[in-house]
Amino acid sequence: MALIVQKYGGTSVADTERINAVADRVARMRAAGDLMVVVVSAMSGETDRLLKLATEVDDNPLARELDVLLATGEQETAALLSMALHQRNCDARSYMGHQVHILTDNIHGKARIRGIDGDRVRKDLDRGRVVVIAGFQGVDEEGNITTLGRGGSDTTAVAMSAALKADECQIYTDVDGIYTADPRIVPEARRLDRVTVEEMLELASLGAKILQTRSVQFAGKYKVPLRVLSSFEVGPGTLISYEEKKMEEAVISGIAFTRDEAKLTILGVPDQPGVAYKLFDDIAAAAIEVDMIVQNVGADGLTDVTFTVQRADYAKAMNILKKVAEELSAQEVKGDDKIVKISVVGVGMRSHAGIASTMFQALAQEGINIQMISTSEIKISVVVDEKYLELGVRALHTAFGLEKSPESST
Amino acid sequence: MALIVQKYGGTSVADTERINAVADRVARMRAAGDLMVVVVSAMSGETDRLLKLATEVDDNPLARELDVLLATGEQETAALLSMALHQRNCDARSYMGHQVHILTDNIHGKARIRGIDGDRVRKDLDRGRVVVIAGFQGVDEEGNITTLGRGGSDTTAVAMSAALKADECQIYTDVDGIYTADPRIVPEARRLDRVTVEEMLELASLGAKILQTRSVQFAGKYKVPLRVLSSFEVGPGTLISYEEKKMEEAVISGIAFTRDEAKLTILGVPDQPGVAYKLFDDIAAAAIEVDMIVQNVGADGLTDVTFTVQRADYAKAMNILKKVAEELSAQEVKGDDKIVKISVVGVGMRSHAGIASTMFQALAQEGINIQMISTSEIKISVVVDEKYLELGVRALHTAFGLEKSPESST
Repeated sequence: MALIVQKYGGTSVADTERINAVADRVARMRAAGDLMVVVVSAMSGETDRLLKLATEVDDNPLARELDVLLATGEQETAALLSMALHQRNCDARSYMGHQVHILTDNIHGKARIRGIDGDRVRKDLDRGRVVVIAGFQGVDEEGNITTLGRGGSDTTAVAMSAALKADECQIYTDVDGIYTADPRIVPEARRLDRVTVEEMLELASLGAKILQTRSVQFAGKYKVPLRVLSSFEVGPGTLISYEEKKMEEAVISGIAFTRDEAKLTILGVPDQPGVAYKLFDDIAAAAIEVDMIVQNVGADGLTDVTFTVQRADYAKAMNILKKVAEELSAQEVKGDDKIVKISVVGVGMRSHAGIASTMFQALAQEGINIQMISTSEIKISVVVDEKYLELGVRALHTAFGLEKSPESST
Repeated sequence: MALIVQKYGGTSVADTERINAVADRVARMRAAGDLMVVVVSAMSGETDRLLKLATEVDDNPLARELDVLLATGEQETAALLSMALHQRNCDARSYMGHQVHILTDNIHGKARIRGIDGDRVRKDLDRGRVVVIAGFQGVDEEGNITTLGRGGSDTTAVAMSAALKADECQIYTDVDGIYTADPRIVPEARRLDRVTVEEMLELASLGAKILQTRSVQFAGKYKVPLRVLSSFEVGPGTLISYEEKKMEEAVISGIAFTRDEAKLTILGVPDQPGVAYKLFDDIAAAAIEVDMIVQNVGADGLTDVTFTVQRADYAKAMNILKKVAEELSAQEVKGDDKIVKISVVGVGMRSHAGIASTMFQALAQEGINIQMISTSEIKISVVVDEKYLELGVRALHTAFGLEKSPESST
């Protein structure tokens, strides 16, 4: 008998047919003896319907009231799932954020959880009840309804798992786990049984948007065993673990990528303290997120700085850069909004000196020019022309032998 | 400057266009200096949509969860109206039942309000904010979401008015007031400027279903000045007052009727104690509501009892009556499910002996046979064949001169 927290996203509860399918699984697991807590998102499409109504009455909807409106989506699903469980003779109770005291700060639309009261949930679990919780929502200290922003239901599930010390937090999505690469691009891509939380973080932030970074960080902090599964197929999914990998396991766990990037370069600026500050302070003030930053120091006391932003921010960033270039008497400003980032991700790659050379060789063999390179503890990222995205990802997947499972490769 | 509580029903907030119209009125009144509290129902159609979803997952939806589901309807409207007010530069805040502590018992689906905490609302009013409250919902002592049943938003508005000692509770509907008779049947019917709460109760319970009986009773208990207005037209509506009528005012305020009634008669039962008990105990046990009861005592120690029920309950009531008739050795059982009830309503009619004779004469002149008569402090009701409904209502409206206002008739 285990205490399982499950989370079902919008496509997993898209309509009453899907809700019934979820109820089947939950009731079956409860009957088998597990203690079940289920966190649900709004039925897919419901949030869009509500947003449309909001813009019909307020062209810039008030954040506090938008939270009140959007919170109804999860409330609907929670009530419906609880009814569906009742229909299966499975005792269940739905709770909203305020009822289980999911206390947050008061930043409407992207509130952060400060605490959860697990007592009420535990009492119901002790009585054999399934507890269904509306995800994505909480209350601030004054009792105002707040929402947690994108991926908020994942965060609810992880926070609830931490509060209850659950044996596992299962995130049901429309994919059946974390892959060595996007299967739509690399048909040989293989589902990973296990990834570390750091690998997951890189894979999630680099475009494999299965889990929100925030919820994975949260899970890591409280050591909540997290599993990604498909609500449409039966399978073990991928477990996100907090243990060190064994020596014989593969060094590289997957290839990630990000489309819709752009890069900007400022050339020939004085190589002195304060230059980088001046540049990125203005960019940050415009709420533009910067991803990679590369700086080369030249021989003549001048330096070049290149950085990447999301493609949607390219024009705005370029305007700022031109102004800064003038102030700094820079020689030139250049940019390219047709680039992508490809990364190889794996824990412990630093101890394997050959990873970088294998990566660069594989790309070179396909004639792919590397425009930027950036490295971290567990990944190496390169920026290339966007036309090489699929070719590059496939070449790297093959070069690192990711189509073979670690066991078969030894 | 007055403190006004307004309530808008489903048709008054049917879509965002209607919600914008409500926001126009509320913002205008606030700007003119009134302190405004607005109670809203679910957008019309929303409750049906939710009920359909519920039956798709649970053929007998769990009452607790049905309340959680249905409460989202009012929450949606409250958030949207609050946004629409914001769009008009009118500071507003929406609150759900749990946030303003609308404490109820735990009878899901038809909970009764036990108390309201007006403090939070008062604080917002002091800051010049419009307070928008989701009607129809509350919380029980354990924090479970409850709903108040049919007409619940009216009850929310009245209870809030009582808690805040509002100057007036305005109920916005799709009619512009209380009429001397249904204008669809009597074109000359006249809107009443004022009715007493007792008259309103009779008019409401007798088919002029503008306000729920429960909320009118509630208003009467706390002496909340209640006004019925149209949200589609400008007008003074009808004020429900608690003062004695002035002598010169009309004795009869209106003609009410109820369609879809049925009558049942048990003939020749022993006229002795316990007979009525035996009969109505079984009827009540079957959850059949009995309206009128008339008993005639015969000369031979036998008696006849006739009573009316809603037409939908006729077959069930007849089966029970047949069993009881056998037990009591009654002579015969008869019934008629093609009857209607017509009533003349007016405070103080007892002091005017001529009312009954005027009524019976008017009906006789049209050849309408009276099957049953029942009287109370403020009404006289007759049961007639349903084919005489329109004719009877019009004849009585004319006989009592209701097309003329009291002032012009003196």
